[in-house]
Amino acid sequence: MEPIHQNEMLKQNRNLLNLFVESLLISDNSSTPQPSAGKFNPFNLSNMNTRRNFLQKASFGFAAAAALPSLGNALTQQADRNAVEDEASFTLGFAGYSFLKFDLDKSIAMMKRLAVDHLSIKEFHLPLNSSQETIDAVKKKLSDAGIKPYTVGVIYMRSKEAVDQAFAYAQKVGVNMIVGVPNADLLGYTEEKVKATNIRMAIHNHGPEDKLYPSPKDIYDRIKDMDPRMGLCIDIGHTFRAGVLPEKAVKEYKSRLFDLHIKDVTAMAKDAKVIEVGRGAINFPAFVEALEKINYSGVCSIEYEKDMSDPLVGMAESIGFFKGVQMG
Amino acid sequence: MEPIHQNEMLKQNRNLLNLFVESLLISDNSSTPQPSAGKFNPFNLSNMNTRRNFLQKASFGFAAAAALPSLGNALTQQADRNAVEDEASFTLGFAGYSFLKFDLDKSIAMMKRLAVDHLSIKEFHLPLNSSQETIDAVKKKLSDAGIKPYTVGVIYMRSKEAVDQAFAYAQKVGVNMIVGVPNADLLGYTEEKVKATNIRMAIHNHGPEDKLYPSPKDIYDRIKDMDPRMGLCIDIGHTFRAGVLPEKAVKEYKSRLFDLHIKDVTAMAKDAKVIEVGRGAINFPAFVEALEKINYSGVCSIEYEKDMSDPLVGMAESIGFFKGVQMG
Repeated sequence: MEPIHQNEMLKQNRNLLNLFVESLLISDNSSTPQPSAGKFNPFNLSNMNTRRNFLQKASFGFAAAAALPSLGNALTQQADRNAVEDEASFTLGFAGYSFLKFDLDKSIAMMKRLAVDHLSIKEFHLPLNSSQETIDAVKKKLSDAGIKPYTVGVIYMRSKEAVDQAFAYAQKVGVNMIVGVPNADLLGYTEEKVKATNIRMAIHNHGPEDKLYPSPKDIYDRIKDMDPRMGLCIDIGHTFRAGVLPEKAVKEYKSRLFDLHIKDVTAMAKDAKVIEVGRGAINFPAFVEALEKINYSGVCSIEYEKDMSDPLVGMAESIGFFKGVQMG
Repeated sequence: MEPIHQNEMLKQNRNLLNLFVESLLISDNSSTPQPSAGKFNPFNLSNMNTRRNFLQKASFGFAAAAALPSLGNALTQQADRNAVEDEASFTLGFAGYSFLKFDLDKSIAMMKRLAVDHLSIKEFHLPLNSSQETIDAVKKKLSDAGIKPYTVGVIYMRSKEAVDQAFAYAQKVGVNMIVGVPNADLLGYTEEKVKATNIRMAIHNHGPEDKLYPSPKDIYDRIKDMDPRMGLCIDIGHTFRAGVLPEKAVKEYKSRLFDLHIKDVTAMAKDAKVIEVGRGAINFPAFVEALEKINYSGVCSIEYEKDMSDPLVGMAESIGFFKGVQMG
């Protein structure tokens, strides 16, 4: 069930595509191969597109359509849309906190409807002291739904015992990263655990109210000389409320950027409100551009905190917008 | 309640913005003017952005943020986001058919949640033979909700009487355009009515199954020598299913393009299915690019036809995606 490594997939896709484009140019309508529904289907990798290569591909599309007027089906267009050049777009996920008011089954159903398949597991869906048996049952449920739990958190760690518990939990869940908030005086101990377990720690910033880590810099400055597996989960909403542009932060701390919590807020102000992605004040085109520039290879997890009792509509708009910006 | 003409609005916005940027550069935090909630608020015109000028603005944003580090609120960012250069993005609307399973009150509530404020009224919300009184009540309801009925339709016209009824209805509703499907032998009579009423006729294509107007060309060829107020409502899903690229069609028939029904479909094939905008086979970046190129000034109406009993989530994703592509 492990997904193939993205670069491997890109390579495969590029090779398949080249073959396919060649076949298009020599075949007529009747002999054109039809896309199949297989796992490595080069026709079904729409999340591999980015806005820049998409526009390049558009020109190719015109040329191909002109050259093959009789083709009359989706193949040219599809090949066109799925051409992968030098860059890939970003894996979408959800920060589990988005589903605060929903049990795991409902959360899974929502994720499936939204076609998002990466989840940061939050402890209200799987308590930190769960037995391996309970954990395995939850993992099976996720796996059956095609959802990959790629990390756990946000986990607060205010004691050594809490750090121990978090790492033991991550090991049992089988993830290689924790999104966490260890107390500042526990960072040394956390680093030891990172070294002992090879599980990365992505420390999460919480905005102006957060005495410990209001903005990414407050994390970075404390960990920059530590083990390189000590890093950041940048919450772009809290970052923006703390007066920092997310597009600047991801560039500045790229060497330690492990995860992202993506949301929009109404203003660059402490008391700004969360809002559907695209309706707020964050400059998403600049943010996506920055992620492309640093070749961000982690997950883009939406953390949706508006209308938490009825979030599906706003989540859908947010995901649509974030995808659209990448494509546009 | 009439909205100002868009160019007028752009001009106003640009002027206000210049003033505002000047004020930013000379004011400190305490004296910075706060955005107000008024109708002509230059801080609240996010749908005026397009993806190209947004990226240009992004650079300005950095510069301004660097120059004014103490500002610490959203104003720079907002001014930045709302700067209007040479182009405006598109007014979003809904084709009334999207709300087939919902009464007008529920439809209005859905539109408000999605922040979409233009509607093409479909007759199941307001029958064609309605009295002026009924029409006025519906108009008031829409107006109270901040929704502008910008056209009516799709209206099928298979007799002179039906043409008469459609124009009388449009006059009573007070719109200057009908989205319609007049039989081919009624086009001459329809043109007479257009001339007599100064109400434009946007003829709607319905895809490969449509004997009359499968694709935009089938309309254009019949009306190109008629009164210039005879034109097209290009349904991009049906257009694509008919083997025509929407980005090509809008350019080709730009002189007669009055309205758009926007949707996505799974493939360029007759039996393709409708799907959330962005998940299908239509190349939206190329389509949006084409609309910008032709300076399309009409409404971009989403016609959402998937999950028609529970469409809100898919509508939200579609709108988010379409906005994102414009911004991205």
